[in-house]
Amino acid sequence: MPTYTAPVKDIQFVLHDLLKIRESGIPGYDELDPEFTSAILEEAGKITSELLAPLNQVGDREGCTLENGVVHVPTGFKEAFDEVRAGGWTGLDCDPEYGGQGMPQVLGTAVGEMFSAANQSFTMYQGLTHGAYSAIHAHGTDEQKRTYLPKMVDCTWTGTMNLTEPHCGTDLGLMRTRAEPQNDGSYRITGTKIFISAGEHELSENIIHLVLAKIPGGPEGIKGVSLFIVPKYLVNEDGSLGERNGVTVGNIEEKMGIHGNSTCVMNYDGAVGYLLGEKHKGMRAMFTMMNEARIGVGMQGLAQAEAAYQNAVAYARERLQGRAVTGPANPDGPADPLIVHPDIRRALMDQKSFTEGARAFLFWGSMLIDRHLRQGDEAAHGLISLMTPVIKGFLTDKGFESTVQAQQIYGGHGYIEETGMSQFVRDARIAMIYEGANGIQALDLVGRKLGLDGGKHAMAFFEMVKGFIKENSDNEALKGDFLDPLKQASKDLQAAAMFFMAEGMKNPNAALSGSYDFMHLFGHVCLGLMWSQMARAAMEALEGGASDKAFYQAKIQTGRYYMARQLPATAMHLARIQSGADPVMALDEEQF
Amino acid sequence: MPTYTAPVKDIQFVLHDLLKIRESGIPGYDELDPEFTSAILEEAGKITSELLAPLNQVGDREGCTLENGVVHVPTGFKEAFDEVRAGGWTGLDCDPEYGGQGMPQVLGTAVGEMFSAANQSFTMYQGLTHGAYSAIHAHGTDEQKRTYLPKMVDCTWTGTMNLTEPHCGTDLGLMRTRAEPQNDGSYRITGTKIFISAGEHELSENIIHLVLAKIPGGPEGIKGVSLFIVPKYLVNEDGSLGERNGVTVGNIEEKMGIHGNSTCVMNYDGAVGYLLGEKHKGMRAMFTMMNEARIGVGMQGLAQAEAAYQNAVAYARERLQGRAVTGPANPDGPADPLIVHPDIRRALMDQKSFTEGARAFLFWGSMLIDRHLRQGDEAAHGLISLMTPVIKGFLTDKGFESTVQAQQIYGGHGYIEETGMSQFVRDARIAMIYEGANGIQALDLVGRKLGLDGGKHAMAFFEMVKGFIKENSDNEALKGDFLDPLKQASKDLQAAAMFFMAEGMKNPNAALSGSYDFMHLFGHVCLGLMWSQMARAAMEALEGGASDKAFYQAKIQTGRYYMARQLPATAMHLARIQSGADPVMALDEEQF
Repeated sequence: MPTYTAPVKDIQFVLHDLLKIRESGIPGYDELDPEFTSAILEEAGKITSELLAPLNQVGDREGCTLENGVVHVPTGFKEAFDEVRAGGWTGLDCDPEYGGQGMPQVLGTAVGEMFSAANQSFTMYQGLTHGAYSAIHAHGTDEQKRTYLPKMVDCTWTGTMNLTEPHCGTDLGLMRTRAEPQNDGSYRITGTKIFISAGEHELSENIIHLVLAKIPGGPEGIKGVSLFIVPKYLVNEDGSLGERNGVTVGNIEEKMGIHGNSTCVMNYDGAVGYLLGEKHKGMRAMFTMMNEARIGVGMQGLAQAEAAYQNAVAYARERLQGRAVTGPANPDGPADPLIVHPDIRRALMDQKSFTEGARAFLFWGSMLIDRHLRQGDEAAHGLISLMTPVIKGFLTDKGFESTVQAQQIYGGHGYIEETGMSQFVRDARIAMIYEGANGIQALDLVGRKLGLDGGKHAMAFFEMVKGFIKENSDNEALKGDFLDPLKQASKDLQAAAMFFMAEGMKNPNAALSGSYDFMHLFGHVCLGLMWSQMARAAMEALEGGASDKAFYQAKIQTGRYYMARQLPATAMHLARIQSGADPVMALDEEQF
Repeated sequence: MPTYTAPVKDIQFVLHDLLKIRESGIPGYDELDPEFTSAILEEAGKITSELLAPLNQVGDREGCTLENGVVHVPTGFKEAFDEVRAGGWTGLDCDPEYGGQGMPQVLGTAVGEMFSAANQSFTMYQGLTHGAYSAIHAHGTDEQKRTYLPKMVDCTWTGTMNLTEPHCGTDLGLMRTRAEPQNDGSYRITGTKIFISAGEHELSENIIHLVLAKIPGGPEGIKGVSLFIVPKYLVNEDGSLGERNGVTVGNIEEKMGIHGNSTCVMNYDGAVGYLLGEKHKGMRAMFTMMNEARIGVGMQGLAQAEAAYQNAVAYARERLQGRAVTGPANPDGPADPLIVHPDIRRALMDQKSFTEGARAFLFWGSMLIDRHLRQGDEAAHGLISLMTPVIKGFLTDKGFESTVQAQQIYGGHGYIEETGMSQFVRDARIAMIYEGANGIQALDLVGRKLGLDGGKHAMAFFEMVKGFIKENSDNEALKGDFLDPLKQASKDLQAAAMFFMAEGMKNPNAALSGSYDFMHLFGHVCLGLMWSQMARAAMEALEGGASDKAFYQAKIQTGRYYMARQLPATAMHLARIQSGADPVMALDEEQF
């Protein structure tokens, strides 16, 4: 059975050596000293490795079952959910006014990574609740907040998001679910939603569905969509549960992975719903959830990669097969462990350099959110808006690839379900699809975010990279291995952006044909920047006489690997982008 | 439910326009005129799309079950197997002396691709039989050939290959299964083999296991391994079936995919076995099977990619979502089909340019085998030996990626098992692992094949590329789009080989750290060459007044796409390779 150990030391490195969170001046960060964060992370690590990880394979095997309208979750999920709730983990970064612990997002992300790595299907129940919580917190009336948030913070009630319909996923303007206004100010919701994660289950006393629907007579298409709160059980004035609402689960899907999470077809049959936010402005409210969810999905890419990597390393250390080409490393044994072989190392270094770089990127992104939410820093908001599609698209694509590499290290044993390596791959696969398939992320990045506010945020990022390189130009230890490749990669990224500007004017297909490559190019530059910064932080720690030399040296070496072996991808992406629309669009539809 | 249509026209293009098989002078090719091959391919196409493809999802859902030592295959497999046998498909390229149809390998490969695309799990039963047939054909005594081959040609009896044991896969020198010599010249085989595809089932009257084992007292390690024929039922002198032999199925594995094929743990308990080939030379005999199997596995990569691509195209044509950025393409409908969107096109073009290039590469490889087997051409043998790991490793890695891209086009629907897109991904995944995991292919390529016979075969390939470029240097239509990128990619490949020569002498890890990238670099150059040749062939056809202009123009455009958007990968692989062993080997084992 696969195991998971929370990478507390690596997380602490990012929080304190790299991001230096305590010195950031962000309100609420002052209490995040290394002892405090370590205590939280160790405790979360215990729960994730001892309680949640052992249920991961159980969830995959048993899946969810639907019987007479009731969804049964896998064995042990209910007990574990109660334990997680009791520990206060579901409300870690929620508003204290509604019972949350008020921790910054950056800490919520660190703990979230662990939960997700240990058991993605399980963690989705609380993750979706958090998204719904955020939407109500941002757009709800005071009464709505008072009614729902305290119960959602501790997951007494859980939440869902309902966007997709059978005939429309990306293109929500085609939506058919309708909301008929009632005299009492409520609405009656009718329609069918599909792919509703955690749509029905018995983990919580109530389920608060956030549902997109159209109010008849409103504007056509996406501009006529509104968001509604539709509880499974209606809530009485005193907060107690009332009648069952007209929402039922029609089916649960058989999926490639995340079997432990119930993916439901939800039928709304005149269900009572309450408008959340403004009429016809549903997409705006939904995007509060969506942006959070997209970053959370990027986190899943990293998390599955980390969990799979840990098991691949363990297997590479213990499995004896062949001899090192430079002479036996284990002369008294029948063979050497896999880890001596260069190609196994290559695969492990790919994974390690990705997960550690991705973690830095993700946590830095969370810190930007905190800067915005806690300091009103609009530049930080602009930057994280730009980065959201990169975090979602790049981390999930690479996270999936990383799980495939981890599975590959197991050879034939990786293909057998028993070892659990297949589950990492199957679970990681969904992250490339949901919350906007990665092609949509690329479109969002190139078609919307890149030019947002006159391209200000992209320029800010380029300046940040340039500033870092300049600031460290005297640092000989950083120069050749880090700064030079970072500079080149950043030049490639800017050249790609220039190409879009120049060509996109003439032919929008020229920009969109390169959008996917641009997302990956951007991701590599971000991880290149993170690794350059981490290398500097590790060098500083070593100069400062850090006791665990091997740990910091490993950071520098892993960074060198990323710069030498991953950053060359930027030139390839640029070449693809610069080939323009012609090769992509040349065929007639019939020629495929 | 996914469908499959045999790409007869594309196959005919490769056979006749590209490879010009009839003019090749290879014995047996003279009867392969376009009408003849078309008739065979159409007939095979019918069986694969109407009989085998509809059983693909059935196989995935039902899987195989073990009950009291009997393995049940999925519903419909037995009937379909009998129909395939009755049609003579299992012996298409087998020796007429034993009842085969004596067709060249190149035609066997063309039909094999279709079978594999329609139903990989099903086709493995006959595929493994073919491998065992080849090993007995090459290494068996006359009596062994007379006894086994006629029954194996028509799959009255099927075959298996038994290499892996629980503690050893790649490193077969660690093998524990032993073969005790008996007075009558036979052996008694005892041990446990795992991951035995088609190890037990009721599709055939007998199963002929080829088993690697050690004869006590023989040389240590891999040099003491011999190959044995171990029938499930002993065969009487008159050819009738006798007693059940001491071989039983211990378990069948739960796997990520290929559920329709029984992957067995086989227990040999003093089973009667007959030496095949020479004592202690088992690996040599096994490699007859293995080389054939590796090319067959490369074919699976292509085949799954083709099947997945076809369904992705169909979905992209019918699913309405969003509007083309250049204005509505389907103004009367609620939205435009997915296929109008540049990023969807990019993904489809990636798939299309891969599968068509891979097909040319694979069929060209099969032609090399025919040149060797039918003409005794040793240069062709050297070239296909060099290419075997590239075909296996590159086509299965890229084939898998291609199925993931096809699944992605379906969005959330691709993650639902019902659409069948997940199955393509899960089935394609095994091809990267079995018959030597792809890391082993890369090791074989760089550590063995590249320098084989003084590097003669690699030189011959480089010369071939150079010759093609030179021969067409006046062809303006080919130059910029094809010859220039091909030249650059080939230079990158040679630079990588030079790096290995120069650095590998000093440090073998320097070569092995780059082996995986080299395999991919090599694959891209091969497909680049194939596309250049196909473009020329298509241009010639157009100049010759071919009636189906759109078809040939699509070939040229798809080739342009591959050259413009895939070949830039060679520079990335070269940069990675040239970074050498240091980044890969820098960490101590404990630092992972």
